[in-house]
Amino acid sequence: MKELIEIPARCGIAVEVPAGQSIRVVNTHGGQVVDMWAFRRDDPSEHMSMPHSVVTLGRIKPAVGDSLVSNLRRPVLRLVEDTSPGVHCMLFASCDPARYRLLGCTEYHDNCADNLRSAVAAHRIPLPYIPTPLNLFMNTKFDDHRVMRVEPPEARPGDRVTFRAEHDCIVALSACPQDLVPVNAHGCTPTAVAYAVFS
Amino acid sequence: MKELIEIPARCGIAVEVPAGQSIRVVNTHGGQVVDMWAFRRDDPSEHMSMPHSVVTLGRIKPAVGDSLVSNLRRPVLRLVEDTSPGVHCMLFASCDPARYRLLGCTEYHDNCADNLRSAVAAHRIPLPYIPTPLNLFMNTKFDDHRVMRVEPPEARPGDRVTFRAEHDCIVALSACPQDLVPVNAHGCTPTAVAYAVFS
Repeated sequence: MKELIEIPARCGIAVEVPAGQSIRVVNTHGGQVVDMWAFRRDDPSEHMSMPHSVVTLGRIKPAVGDSLVSNLRRPVLRLVEDTSPGVHCMLFASCDPARYRLLGCTEYHDNCADNLRSAVAAHRIPLPYIPTPLNLFMNTKFDDHRVMRVEPPEARPGDRVTFRAEHDCIVALSACPQDLVPVNAHGCTPTAVAYAVFS
Repeated sequence: MKELIEIPARCGIAVEVPAGQSIRVVNTHGGQVVDMWAFRRDDPSEHMSMPHSVVTLGRIKPAVGDSLVSNLRRPVLRLVEDTSPGVHCMLFASCDPARYRLLGCTEYHDNCADNLRSAVAAHRIPLPYIPTPLNLFMNTKFDDHRVMRVEPPEARPGDRVTFRAEHDCIVALSACPQDLVPVNAHGCTPTAVAYAVFS
């Protein structure tokens, strides 16, 4: 059974995914970016790392069958299913208070970095820094190997990705609260997503 | 006066660059990759950060005039001169012992991560993790926004880049010791480079 649990718009969660089990992330309404991190249960200083995965995979967007690796270059999560158009981003820092200040916010704005901090604190995971997330469904493109642009996600309602844990992991997810630039679709409207952990 | 100081092949250094002063990196023999990091002198936990710079700049290769920003999204180093073809890489983790083990090395191999560790230790900078470096002159390219390939650097002998410090910084440089895959030119032969700090 794959019981789907909702992550409300703008919110984050962290959940244990034992080795060999899978975590599925569903883009309930389509067009929503979800920041994803994974930490090894037995030593959270080892975590899924995008700049190491880019080197190992020779790719800046993961494909089904790819194992994303840690900062020690060991497999952490393997992408085993992707019904979306397969457009994700491995290059962007998650949004954080500094990002929203630069975008003109004078008051606190929900953000993926703080969602991660809150979510992993419940699992007693120390977080000396924010690893670069796998930005699920985020639609970044490049011109001439140089200039980058962000377009609304191509993911449709119900599109999903599934990852199998290569080790006991704590996986964190944040339904990105970005509503000032078109990272999310529906006119920059953050929406809820859902996830399930299953054998 | 710009007195050039040599960094021997496979080696690293760290040097103080006061606010307003500049650091120049010269590709003495051409075709050599140089990993670069910068830490704020007054709080080294704030450092030049590639995944944050990518978002701020909207670019995956810095252009003259660009300020690379920190993990708090504040300017750290501004690229003020680039006589090379302007091909650098902001996406790759630096080479490290795990990378060389995966490439088949059974004995210790010089690597940029350890070069950074040794170089900043002399400045008493704690290093709880290795930030993604700016891989100067590294020639990474992308196909269809997905697949990545690494080709030998296009930088010619004497090509140089110059950065002005926006704050008092410790800047670290490592002449990349990669000799197993064609990250460096001359048949994967690491060579010496040089640098100068000046007003």
